[in-house]
Amino acid sequence: MSKLIGACVFGQSGGPTSVINASFYGAAKAALDAECITRVLGAAHGIQGILNDELYDLGQEDPKELKRLLNTPSSALGSCRYKLKDPDVDDTDFRRILEIFQKYDVRYFFYNGGNDSMDTCEKVSRYMAKAGWECRVMGIPKTIDNDLCSTDHCPGFGSAAKYIATSCMEIALDAAVYDYPTATVVEIMGRHAGWLAGSAALASHYGAGPDLIYLPEQVFDMEAFLRRCQEVLKEKGSVFAAVSEGIQDKDGTFISEYASKSGTDAFGHTQLGGLAVYLADQIKNRCGVKSRGIELSLLQRCGAHLASRTDIDEAAMAGMTAVNTAIAGETGKMVAFDCSRRDGTYACRTKLVPLTEAANYEKKVPQEWILPEGRGVTREFIRYALPLIQGDCEREVKDGLPRFAKLKKVKA
Amino acid sequence: MSKLIGACVFGQSGGPTSVINASFYGAAKAALDAECITRVLGAAHGIQGILNDELYDLGQEDPKELKRLLNTPSSALGSCRYKLKDPDVDDTDFRRILEIFQKYDVRYFFYNGGNDSMDTCEKVSRYMAKAGWECRVMGIPKTIDNDLCSTDHCPGFGSAAKYIATSCMEIALDAAVYDYPTATVVEIMGRHAGWLAGSAALASHYGAGPDLIYLPEQVFDMEAFLRRCQEVLKEKGSVFAAVSEGIQDKDGTFISEYASKSGTDAFGHTQLGGLAVYLADQIKNRCGVKSRGIELSLLQRCGAHLASRTDIDEAAMAGMTAVNTAIAGETGKMVAFDCSRRDGTYACRTKLVPLTEAANYEKKVPQEWILPEGRGVTREFIRYALPLIQGDCEREVKDGLPRFAKLKKVKA
Repeated sequence: MSKLIGACVFGQSGGPTSVINASFYGAAKAALDAECITRVLGAAHGIQGILNDELYDLGQEDPKELKRLLNTPSSALGSCRYKLKDPDVDDTDFRRILEIFQKYDVRYFFYNGGNDSMDTCEKVSRYMAKAGWECRVMGIPKTIDNDLCSTDHCPGFGSAAKYIATSCMEIALDAAVYDYPTATVVEIMGRHAGWLAGSAALASHYGAGPDLIYLPEQVFDMEAFLRRCQEVLKEKGSVFAAVSEGIQDKDGTFISEYASKSGTDAFGHTQLGGLAVYLADQIKNRCGVKSRGIELSLLQRCGAHLASRTDIDEAAMAGMTAVNTAIAGETGKMVAFDCSRRDGTYACRTKLVPLTEAANYEKKVPQEWILPEGRGVTREFIRYALPLIQGDCEREVKDGLPRFAKLKKVKA
Repeated sequence: MSKLIGACVFGQSGGPTSVINASFYGAAKAALDAECITRVLGAAHGIQGILNDELYDLGQEDPKELKRLLNTPSSALGSCRYKLKDPDVDDTDFRRILEIFQKYDVRYFFYNGGNDSMDTCEKVSRYMAKAGWECRVMGIPKTIDNDLCSTDHCPGFGSAAKYIATSCMEIALDAAVYDYPTATVVEIMGRHAGWLAGSAALASHYGAGPDLIYLPEQVFDMEAFLRRCQEVLKEKGSVFAAVSEGIQDKDGTFISEYASKSGTDAFGHTQLGGLAVYLADQIKNRCGVKSRGIELSLLQRCGAHLASRTDIDEAAMAGMTAVNTAIAGETGKMVAFDCSRRDGTYACRTKLVPLTEAANYEKKVPQEWILPEGRGVTREFIRYALPLIQGDCEREVKDGLPRFAKLKKVKA
C-alpha cells in the first residue's frame, strides 16, 4: 500500500486514567518521527476540539516535556463525553469534521478512549470512507474499567488495580487498629464490570485486604451481605468489605440508588455515589459497630504516583502501534493486547481488531472467576491481574512533589 | 545518674499515621541494643494492653521484620482511644498499671501518640512517682494533625502533608479535564488545626492544586464561600476547593454538622464526615455546575507508599531519643523537634519538653499565615511545611504490592 501523506490528529476521550497520557506520548512520538505525517495535531477535549477547530500543534512542544506525559495522569489535551449521532440519521457533526480534516489535510485520526470512543472512531471511519476522504482511523484503548472486548486487558486498568490493591492493603492495616469491632466499606469504580473491585483481592491475597468483595456481575443481596459481615465480625472482630459502585439487587436496581438521588449523564449512564457510607450505615444499624465508608473516588484513576510500570509501557506501546500500523495501511481498527503467556514469563503483544468488535460491548468478569457470598475472586483472576500491576513508575519529583508534564498548547 | 535496670514497655495510642511504626522501630531498636533494658515489651492496643496484661516480647521478633516497620503504616501493636481518669479522683487503672509494671519489673515506659497520649504519659509518670515505683516515662509525639505544642512539628504530619499535596495535584489535573464547568471539593482531616488543609497549598504552589483552601482557624462563611466559587468558576471554568473537616461558622458550629448527624467519641470529640459532598451539593445548587465531593479519609494517614523520607527518619529519631534520654536519666518529658534553619539547609534536632507542656493543648496555624477569602496560606507556611515532605520512602515491593512488616507478637 502506498504511503499516505498528510497531517494527523490525536484526541483523548472519556474518563481519564493514570496512563492515557502514556498512550498520547507513544502516538505523538511515533507520529513526530514519521516522514509521511506532515503535522501532528492534538485535539482539545477530544472530538469537540475538532468540531470547534481547537487543535494544538504538537511539533511545537519541547520533546522533554512530551516525555513527561509517560508519568502524568489525566488527559493532557482535555477530554470529552460527547456522543456523535448516527451519521445516517444526522450528519451535521460529520460534515464539520470532514471540513476540519480538509482544512488541515488530516489523513490520520487517532482516538484514545473506551467503548464510547471506539464508537466515535467507527462512525468517523465509516463517514470518511463514504465521503471519499482518505483518512486512516485507529482506536487506542483506554479504560480503568477494563471492560473493552477483544483485548486481553486495557491500558489504565493495571495502574488503577495497583492503586486499589495498595490502598486497600493500607486501609486494612489502619482499619483494624483498635480493639473494638469496626466495619469498613470501600467503594470502587466499575459500573457494570467488576475488574476493579476484584483487584482489591490482590491485597487480600498478598498481605492484608478486604474480607469481603462484591462485584456487579453477581446479584447483591443486602440480607446476605449483612449476615456475612456479622459472621466476619464474630470471627475476626472487624470487617472490611470492598464493593463495586455498580452492585445491583435482584431487580437490577443499583444499590447506590437507594442511597442517593440518581441522575444520568450524556450517555444515559446512571451517576453513582454515596454507596460506601450507605452500606457502612447498614452494617452499623444491624451489627451495632462503629463503621466507616470510604470512596476511592477520582484517585483510583488519577493516582499516577502508583502507576504500574507494565501499564505505562503497554499504554505507550498501544499509542505507537496505532500510528505505525496506520502508516502501514491499516484503518478502522483498534489496537488490542494479546497475552498468551502469564505464568512466569508474561508477554504482551499488540494486535488489531475491527472497531465494530470493540465498540458498545462490555467485557465482564467471567462468572466462574467470582466466588460466592462475597468471598472475592478465584486464583484465575489473581493470575490474570497480577502481571498487570508489576513495576513501579519513575517518579520525577521536584520539591518533594510530582513534576508532571506542562504542555505549551500552541494553537494550530 | 545511676543506670536504671529493668524492662521497658512501648505502646501506641490514638489515630495511626504512616510513620508511627518508624518511631516504634527507633524505640525498639534502641531498647533492644541497651544493656540496662532487660526485656523489651510491646503493649497491645496501647495502655489497654497494660491494663489487660497483653504484652508482646519484642526480643522474639526477627530483626529484619522489625526494620520493615520503618515503612509500614498504621500501629503495628494496635492502638486505643482510652482516656485515663485523674488518679486523684479514681486510681483504679493506675493501681493496675503499677501491678503490671511490678510483675514485669517495668522501669521504662514509652508512649507514642498525640496530646491525649501525652496526658496519659503525664498521669502515669505522676502516679508512679507518688507510688514510689521508679519508672522513667517518656512521650514520643505522633499526629498527622501537627497540633502538638512545644515542638516545631510532629512525626506523621510530613507524610500526611505529602499524601495530601500529591493527591490534590493529581485531582487538580483530573478535575479540570472536561470543557464544561465543574466543582470539586476535597475534605481534609484536622479537627481544630488547619496544618493538613494548608498543606494542599503545596500542590497549588508547585504545579496544580486547589483554587480555594479553608482552614478551621478562620470562621467559615457559606455565602462568602459560594461567592468565591462563583468567581473562580467565571475566571477558570472550574473550581477546586480544599476544606478542613473542622471548618466552623461564626457560631462555632461545625459545617459538617449541617451535613450529618453527629456523635461523639470517647474523648468527647465530635465525629465528622460527609462535608465534601455537602459543600459540593451547595455549589451545584448555587452555581448550577456538576460537582464532586472527595473525602481523603483514612488514606491521608495510612498511605505509607507516599511517606516522606524526612518524616520517617525523624519519627525513628524521636523513638530512639526517647529511649536513650530515658536511659541517661530523663523522665516526664516528651521528645520534641527544634528546627532553627529552614532555608536551604533544613536541620532538625531533638529536644525534651515537659509532658505537662505538650498535653491537652492544641497548636493552631498562626492567623498571619492564613490568607483571607479561601486564598490559602502564605509563603511562610509553605516555607515551614516544604522541608517536611522531602524524600521518597524505600518501598519494598513483593508481587507489585507493598511488603509490610508482619510481627510474630509472642506473648510475654
